[in-house]
Amino acid sequence: MPGLSQRAAAMPASPLRKLANAAEERKKNGTTVYHLNIGQPDMETPVEFMEAVREFSQNPIAYAMSQGTPDAIDAWRGYYESLGIALEKNELMITTGGSEAIIFAMCAIADPGDNIMVFEPFYTNYNGFGKIGGVDMKPVTLSIDNGFHLPSDEQIEAAIDERTKAMIVCNPSNPTGTVYTAEELKRLVDIAIRHDIFIIADEVYREFGFDQVVTSLMSFPEAQDRVIMIDSASKRFNACGIRIGTLVSKNTDVIATAVKFGMARLSVATLEQQALIPVLKQAATIIPPVVEEYKKRRDVVYDGLLAIPGIKAAKPEGAFYIICELPVDSTEKFAKWMIEEFEHEGETVLVAPAPGFYATAGKGEQEIRIAYVLNVEKLGRALELLKLAIEEYTAL
Amino acid sequence: MPGLSQRAAAMPASPLRKLANAAEERKKNGTTVYHLNIGQPDMETPVEFMEAVREFSQNPIAYAMSQGTPDAIDAWRGYYESLGIALEKNELMITTGGSEAIIFAMCAIADPGDNIMVFEPFYTNYNGFGKIGGVDMKPVTLSIDNGFHLPSDEQIEAAIDERTKAMIVCNPSNPTGTVYTAEELKRLVDIAIRHDIFIIADEVYREFGFDQVVTSLMSFPEAQDRVIMIDSASKRFNACGIRIGTLVSKNTDVIATAVKFGMARLSVATLEQQALIPVLKQAATIIPPVVEEYKKRRDVVYDGLLAIPGIKAAKPEGAFYIICELPVDSTEKFAKWMIEEFEHEGETVLVAPAPGFYATAGKGEQEIRIAYVLNVEKLGRALELLKLAIEEYTAL
Repeated sequence: MPGLSQRAAAMPASPLRKLANAAEERKKNGTTVYHLNIGQPDMETPVEFMEAVREFSQNPIAYAMSQGTPDAIDAWRGYYESLGIALEKNELMITTGGSEAIIFAMCAIADPGDNIMVFEPFYTNYNGFGKIGGVDMKPVTLSIDNGFHLPSDEQIEAAIDERTKAMIVCNPSNPTGTVYTAEELKRLVDIAIRHDIFIIADEVYREFGFDQVVTSLMSFPEAQDRVIMIDSASKRFNACGIRIGTLVSKNTDVIATAVKFGMARLSVATLEQQALIPVLKQAATIIPPVVEEYKKRRDVVYDGLLAIPGIKAAKPEGAFYIICELPVDSTEKFAKWMIEEFEHEGETVLVAPAPGFYATAGKGEQEIRIAYVLNVEKLGRALELLKLAIEEYTAL
Repeated sequence: MPGLSQRAAAMPASPLRKLANAAEERKKNGTTVYHLNIGQPDMETPVEFMEAVREFSQNPIAYAMSQGTPDAIDAWRGYYESLGIALEKNELMITTGGSEAIIFAMCAIADPGDNIMVFEPFYTNYNGFGKIGGVDMKPVTLSIDNGFHLPSDEQIEAAIDERTKAMIVCNPSNPTGTVYTAEELKRLVDIAIRHDIFIIADEVYREFGFDQVVTSLMSFPEAQDRVIMIDSASKRFNACGIRIGTLVSKNTDVIATAVKFGMARLSVATLEQQALIPVLKQAATIIPPVVEEYKKRRDVVYDGLLAIPGIKAAKPEGAFYIICELPVDSTEKFAKWMIEEFEHEGETVLVAPAPGFYATAGKGEQEIRIAYVLNVEKLGRALELLKLAIEEYTAL
């Protein structure tokens, strides 16, 4: 039997997979499990989308153009224009989720053996896309002590070597909930210019800034030719299962290259591209109540965490995640114990241990990520359960 | 401005793109263009699919499991079982079109710098996927003189070197329309075993065998651990725009690895996976009339080609393509002239020059590929136009 590739062997198994199986077991045995482990919103996909699906009548359902259907491209351009980002038709393409946008961006700018600088803890899947493209992730470690904001320029630049082709910046951040200030982003722009590298700007949570407006990396004119923005309909429209994203850049060579990669996969699903058009046109009314709801949840989660002795957390400024440090030695062991053994009145909680979000071995062992994708009442109970679990576990 | 990657530079632009633009120009100026250039079927997407779309009510539309929704996986298993291919749940995954199945297969078994043997002329996009994964295509040239059937074992094995990880076999073949016999496939199986390489079996046209049953590479027990089958709903269900495919293998390590790649991109669109279920259940009644129609078209095209002096063509045995040799020096120039300048009673034809289907420079210069995805009446007229165009062009 022939062997698999080295990249197959190096491909990380999802660190959450085993815990998810344990959660299924508990549910089968009648325990209620509060899922704080993944970013799957519980709110509804907009009625505009569901109606457009019901009314879809193109037959045969044909390949769309590789860059995206012209109507959908125009709808996305209208949405970006409302955010102050004016785009020509050749400055964006529609992708199969933000996921495909990331791999096309990586492959457009980096060859096998090159690397991309990333701030850890980071969105785990960057690693998986890197493996597909043969590109390494080079981490710069952030600290919970300053709310996962940037370290000094020196610390950042120490991670850049001659094979570094880009930095990737997730803002607001999954998994930390940090919103970088305009000043921080300007520092990153200057570093990128100084080292002549690209900036991959993952802005899928852009509207989810609770206490301040989120600055887009697209808004720095001096970096126009090096910023590649990743976007997705998943979070702001509660539509993770539709798999629609975009890749945006004022560097039209990048988009033209990504479209060539896109030609190999022919097209993005026609139906979802089209059904999203009325949603994009109503974005200004659909999104604010969603963000308002997450802000309430953020407050419930943060207050709930502060009530737990020995916990360390910075107040999240955006997205719908928080990374907090628990008074335990290993959150992997603790999370496993909590989902396999703990219960209070027939209920328990599933959280994501943070080591899976770090590339550096040994980092984040006392930290977990919470995704606050449950309603306020459930979140309050989940935080109470977490408090009780920590008390019981630390007394073991 | 930072430079793009070498693979970006090496990524082939679609050879058909410029001709497609020329076709749009002609249409704007009132000329009717018969499109024989791409494999976009004109027949209807099954009513079962359209109804399932109208009735889809999951809300929020959530991430599906990375391997595919359990219901859809079972429906695909039922479809394969009806073909005599019994599969366990961990022997297939659902992918975003056959395209994603190909890149996952390539990345699971090959590292950057490795190569995959391919019979040319071949489906151009293998090349694009290879570029994304850093894997080279190593061609074995077939000949129109034996209907693009296999050359000797020696000629095939000469292309295999120490970095060859697999051969890719498209059967029935896009772009040649060739159906390999069971004996030919057995030879390939033996070669793969002898050199301990994988076989990627692209069988998206499996039902499209006109004069014989198509043998699946999944049916050789001795090659169970090395055959990776690529599949797609696009062609047999006239549903290119839904982007649903599968990756199938009895080698569960391959599937487990592909699912890990799949976790990085989270999931395949939930809606299309689910809407395809009733179609898969009715496959046995939906597909045969489609194949019957293509058989009629095959006959019209082949007879039409035989009526053109100086043409060379083998009768296609399957799929819905034919590669034929024209009495011209360069089909790229001829096809360009035909779409830009030729007309007869306000009508012209767009065909695909064959060099784009070869990896070896200089091959296929007198050949074109025709996709017979128009009805019999239109095809008859298109072949008449081709005949007139060749007469006019060769007299220039």
